[in-house]
Amino acid sequence: MKPEEDAFGHELWACYKGEEVFEVVERDDGYVDAISSEVYFSEYEDWHPIEKKAMEFVTGRVLDVGCGAGRHSLYLQKKGFDVLGIDISPLAIKICKLRGLKKAEVMAIEEVNFKPKSFDTIIMMGNNFGLFGSFKKAQSLLKKFHKMTTEKALIIADTRDVYKTDNPAHLDYHKINKQKGRMGGQVRIRVRFRKYVGRWFDYLMVSKEEMKEILDGTGWKVKDFADSGNSLYVAIIEKAAE
Amino acid sequence: MKPEEDAFGHELWACYKGEEVFEVVERDDGYVDAISSEVYFSEYEDWHPIEKKAMEFVTGRVLDVGCGAGRHSLYLQKKGFDVLGIDISPLAIKICKLRGLKKAEVMAIEEVNFKPKSFDTIIMMGNNFGLFGSFKKAQSLLKKFHKMTTEKALIIADTRDVYKTDNPAHLDYHKINKQKGRMGGQVRIRVRFRKYVGRWFDYLMVSKEEMKEILDGTGWKVKDFADSGNSLYVAIIEKAAE
Repeated sequence: MKPEEDAFGHELWACYKGEEVFEVVERDDGYVDAISSEVYFSEYEDWHPIEKKAMEFVTGRVLDVGCGAGRHSLYLQKKGFDVLGIDISPLAIKICKLRGLKKAEVMAIEEVNFKPKSFDTIIMMGNNFGLFGSFKKAQSLLKKFHKMTTEKALIIADTRDVYKTDNPAHLDYHKINKQKGRMGGQVRIRVRFRKYVGRWFDYLMVSKEEMKEILDGTGWKVKDFADSGNSLYVAIIEKAAE
Repeated sequence: MKPEEDAFGHELWACYKGEEVFEVVERDDGYVDAISSEVYFSEYEDWHPIEKKAMEFVTGRVLDVGCGAGRHSLYLQKKGFDVLGIDISPLAIKICKLRGLKKAEVMAIEEVNFKPKSFDTIIMMGNNFGLFGSFKKAQSLLKKFHKMTTEKALIIADTRDVYKTDNPAHLDYHKINKQKGRMGGQVRIRVRFRKYVGRWFDYLMVSKEEMKEILDGTGWKVKDFADSGNSLYVAIIEKAAE
């Protein structure tokens, strides 16, 4: 990634430096939205109850996929877990290290390649089930994750049931996606921050049924869901019996 | 304005309906930023001290230029002033009326044309000195405002001294603007909200010195400034002696 493409990292950096920062997310149909970047630096106390709940399932050696500014990794490291945070953004990883995360590496989810049984828990928080990108890519990565993890390993991931909306722009987008053979919630987006423009990428948001379909045949199955009351939910994913 | 061009109005509408809404502002050099739309609905108690201070100068019949969701107009109306709010956004004006503003009209600043001595105060709050657009347009509108107002009338306007920044993207923009014969802080922007894309327009932000240069020869002069401690300031503008 060229430095000027690291829009997300520059956003985190400005926020880390104490500026009031918003992330602009642009979808390929021209839809834009924004969030305050502070969420990436939020402390445990301010997390959604289901995020707190999710942390209760963590055991052993942890891989944090798409760790951002390290909010989950740092929390878990403090709790005594052996955590490796990975993120595609070089500036995000720089911030993680500056904030005290001992193990942090610049790595895209596609590049993940660890020895068998390297991890007991893989977390994909902050909607990061989305990093699976597509049905096919999710299945391929889940199979890879299967090999990298111990027998009792869990994947803890959150996502949004995007169909729980009455926003017509979203409903149209889901429909057009399906016509194209994509998943409804497979949103092609990019981050814009000031003059920085990130690369387009596919981010996947799924209903519970869709998640089950993705997991089927990958060696993983849903152990439990934690519901937020809105479209956001956490999935606790365990290895299926052979 | 076509309904689909009223990005700002749609943004206010979603916020009025209780949704969590951000406004995305895009500059013509590709710079994007966002703000929470809640500011447009903020109550007096939550205003910046200089906005509160500004309200102390209001007398008589008031014209609120670019009234948005009506936060200043509604405050002043409640205080007993005779207020007319105008905004280019039809949805903004609809919201003003729904919120109880008695006099609210869809009108661009360029269309303002009232009888002599119609107003004692013209307010241009929320950075709305910016609606003057350019040096030349500002002077032309100020002369028009002169005729529409009583002898002791005031214009109460806030803006930002945009030169008080160390953001290199902004500093470059000011430089390029000046090379083009525009004012440094004459930013060409548009509002984006979800799939709505507003029209490009020039919004003018000026230093105190630049403001004085604009006023010179228009029949107006600065009576007082109120400083915020950052780049934002309020100008109290009165009629110059003949």
